[in-house]
Amino acid sequence: MSETDLIQDQHDAATQLDEDDRLKPAFVRNVLDAVEAGDNEAARALVEPLHPADIADLFELTPNDRRADLAKAITDLLDGDVFAEMNDYVREDLIDALEPHEVADIASELDTDDAVAIIEDMEEDDQRAVLRALDPDDRAAIEEALSYPEESAGRLMQRELIAVPEHWTVGNAIDYLRGHEELTTDFWEIFVVDPTHKPVGTCQLSWLLRTPRSIPIGDVMQREQTLIPVDMDQEEVALRFQKYALISAAVVDPNGRLVGMITVDDIVHIISEEAGEDTLRLAGAGDGDINEPLHLTIRTRITWLVVNLGTAMIAASVVGLFQGQIARFALLAVLMPIVSGMGGNAGTQTLAVVVRALATNQLTSSNTARMILREFRIAVANGVMLALLIGGGTWLVFGNGDLAIVIALAMVINNMIAGLAGVLVPVTLERAGVDPAVSSAVFVTTSTDVMGFLSFLGLATLWGLGG
Amino acid sequence: MSETDLIQDQHDAATQLDEDDRLKPAFVRNVLDAVEAGDNEAARALVEPLHPADIADLFELTPNDRRADLAKAITDLLDGDVFAEMNDYVREDLIDALEPHEVADIASELDTDDAVAIIEDMEEDDQRAVLRALDPDDRAAIEEALSYPEESAGRLMQRELIAVPEHWTVGNAIDYLRGHEELTTDFWEIFVVDPTHKPVGTCQLSWLLRTPRSIPIGDVMQREQTLIPVDMDQEEVALRFQKYALISAAVVDPNGRLVGMITVDDIVHIISEEAGEDTLRLAGAGDGDINEPLHLTIRTRITWLVVNLGTAMIAASVVGLFQGQIARFALLAVLMPIVSGMGGNAGTQTLAVVVRALATNQLTSSNTARMILREFRIAVANGVMLALLIGGGTWLVFGNGDLAIVIALAMVINNMIAGLAGVLVPVTLERAGVDPAVSSAVFVTTSTDVMGFLSFLGLATLWGLGG
Repeated sequence: MSETDLIQDQHDAATQLDEDDRLKPAFVRNVLDAVEAGDNEAARALVEPLHPADIADLFELTPNDRRADLAKAITDLLDGDVFAEMNDYVREDLIDALEPHEVADIASELDTDDAVAIIEDMEEDDQRAVLRALDPDDRAAIEEALSYPEESAGRLMQRELIAVPEHWTVGNAIDYLRGHEELTTDFWEIFVVDPTHKPVGTCQLSWLLRTPRSIPIGDVMQREQTLIPVDMDQEEVALRFQKYALISAAVVDPNGRLVGMITVDDIVHIISEEAGEDTLRLAGAGDGDINEPLHLTIRTRITWLVVNLGTAMIAASVVGLFQGQIARFALLAVLMPIVSGMGGNAGTQTLAVVVRALATNQLTSSNTARMILREFRIAVANGVMLALLIGGGTWLVFGNGDLAIVIALAMVINNMIAGLAGVLVPVTLERAGVDPAVSSAVFVTTSTDVMGFLSFLGLATLWGLGG
Repeated sequence: MSETDLIQDQHDAATQLDEDDRLKPAFVRNVLDAVEAGDNEAARALVEPLHPADIADLFELTPNDRRADLAKAITDLLDGDVFAEMNDYVREDLIDALEPHEVADIASELDTDDAVAIIEDMEEDDQRAVLRALDPDDRAAIEEALSYPEESAGRLMQRELIAVPEHWTVGNAIDYLRGHEELTTDFWEIFVVDPTHKPVGTCQLSWLLRTPRSIPIGDVMQREQTLIPVDMDQEEVALRFQKYALISAAVVDPNGRLVGMITVDDIVHIISEEAGEDTLRLAGAGDGDINEPLHLTIRTRITWLVVNLGTAMIAASVVGLFQGQIARFALLAVLMPIVSGMGGNAGTQTLAVVVRALATNQLTSSNTARMILREFRIAVANGVMLALLIGGGTWLVFGNGDLAIVIALAMVINNMIAGLAGVLVPVTLERAGVDPAVSSAVFVTTSTDVMGFLSFLGLATLWGLGG
């Protein structure tokens, strides 16, 4: 055992985690056994040392029908932080089982953004009941947050922040922070505002701590460059945090006044989700959440499959045009899936690259032409290489030079189609305001299927193969 | 124009950015025109107000063959921060064009992690020349970082951090920070260490600022729970930051001593990259970097395509077994791509979900069995629905009840294969230590192609269709 394993083990022994930072199956079993045996004391003793994120995981790893029992057994450990870390579907399930005043108790412990995340997905009646049970300040803050569009900065931001006037000194700011019990303790930067409460700068706490008390804040702060409009989409917010390596950012209303703050810890899971969801969307797998109720998953997936069934029928009808040819020369039916399939593979490669480049703002109007040319050159190079391989193989195996030439030509043509469709489809959809990850694949594979069959069977007919 | 657009415009006017935070094409053109005209003054005036991340973007948006000229024109604006933000390939290009002492000047301005990122990809000779040109402290720090594996915590961490003993008071810590010019200014937490320099706790700067000077640090800090071993893979580091919403974390050597610090701003791009790269890997598109030299991209992609050509030939050889049947009844060739293609679509859906769940540590040994059952139920439900649609359609269009039954049965069988392969292939590869995103798709689509053709053509033969 290496020394690093040793450290890892110390970490694990304390927290019951495997090397992926997930709870060990044996630990989950022990907790659930204790719950089943009615030994709530034992269950609590096991769960208490866990980090809130791990308690949230415990619920995700527990089968649906046993989550409510677990919640009842360890109810006092189920605080707001645990709910804030929990998967949406799992949380909704649990919240449904709680009384409005219990939800209100949990929500009132949390920063606005986490409270909103819990309340926003509730049924309207339940939501109103929870809001009524909150104290007026919390209620007003949450109601305001709910007035912003879903997935916007207004939903993500917390109202709890530190704002100070520009003329204050570093000492003034520190005294203010020490003297006001009611201020938030979770912040990484303070915002400097003008008399109309518009942000003019940001000051990292490390700068406050490294600067003599007598220096004015205005001389320490960095001028504000990255204000987040309150209705900005969370995906844009995430990209801005990434690009400028932000730790926190000021959120401003349409009049430019500071209304909230977003911190990077609320953004990291959005960065990961937004980056990962393209994988799922390209495959037509919805949001791919493994905690989603089964009937919703089935509905999402069958929708995509039915659309693809339609396009598969279009491609099949192209094959249908050549039935006579195929009946005379059945080898065509053997080889045709190779041409269409390889076009599909090449098109998917290009599509994946383009969708990622669009999602990360790497592909913009400044370099679209360059990208199209680049992908076309790749398509020609790879098309020619594949054509030589399949043409040579066909000639060797079937000793039919004409068939070899036809399949080689069809391969080059379909690769070029794949390369062009792989760029043009997502770029066009993006410009039309449609998410390219959701719908591009259908168009690209339809193109490569149809053109694969048409070029191969069409050329074979023109060439008089099997005629 | 809404008021939000107005704010956005103020932001844009100042920084020449479009709504995606990317430089406008017109701006890029203006800069390049000035460079071409030899008017370096004008180019500098345009570029100077930009954020380092935007100067890095400017280079990415400039065609390859003009980047060196741009660099020469605005050389004094090209500082370490710009290089740190730049795409790897673009940076390598530029670094290649610089003298070792120029690279050393840039590296010495940077935190260890950013300096390492610049130096690690250089040729060994150039690397040595740059290291020689650095002052001994910087050299030692960078050499130590380079001694850790690529993509490990040791490469990501910076050595510049604040560590204080547990017995100090808040006042001691603040005085220390104020009194030592040479300390780093970029930190968000301070680490509390024992006399052997092992971390025992973390103290957010906001807690320091909100606490009276006389209180001991030990009473303010949070006990350390999330130490990062120096050889941990960056993907694991990123997941740990995400899970525990960390802003910074202590990195420890195999003896448990504090050797560095990783901050979240160095992690956000890794989170995004790691989450996004599954999209690219599943499609066989390598790292999908649009700045990668063309010949490397072609090589990556053709490798994947040739592997797929091999599997397409295996599937084709299955069709080959039924040539006689197809010659007698060519409609089989028309319909067979529908069965194989729909299996491929369903398999890809499951695969995408499973690969994401594995990558985010959602799918662990605690819930694998549950996942397999879940996907199997989805596959049966969707398979039956697709079977009814295609069976009904076939019966309506071709009036052939036997053909309708055969294609419906084949569709159900192939969907079940797709669902099982979609889970079992990636889970098995992951357990075998192979990245499931890289190689799963080949196995899954080979299964669905082969079983699609085999089930449909085989059943048709058994049923005596066209016989």
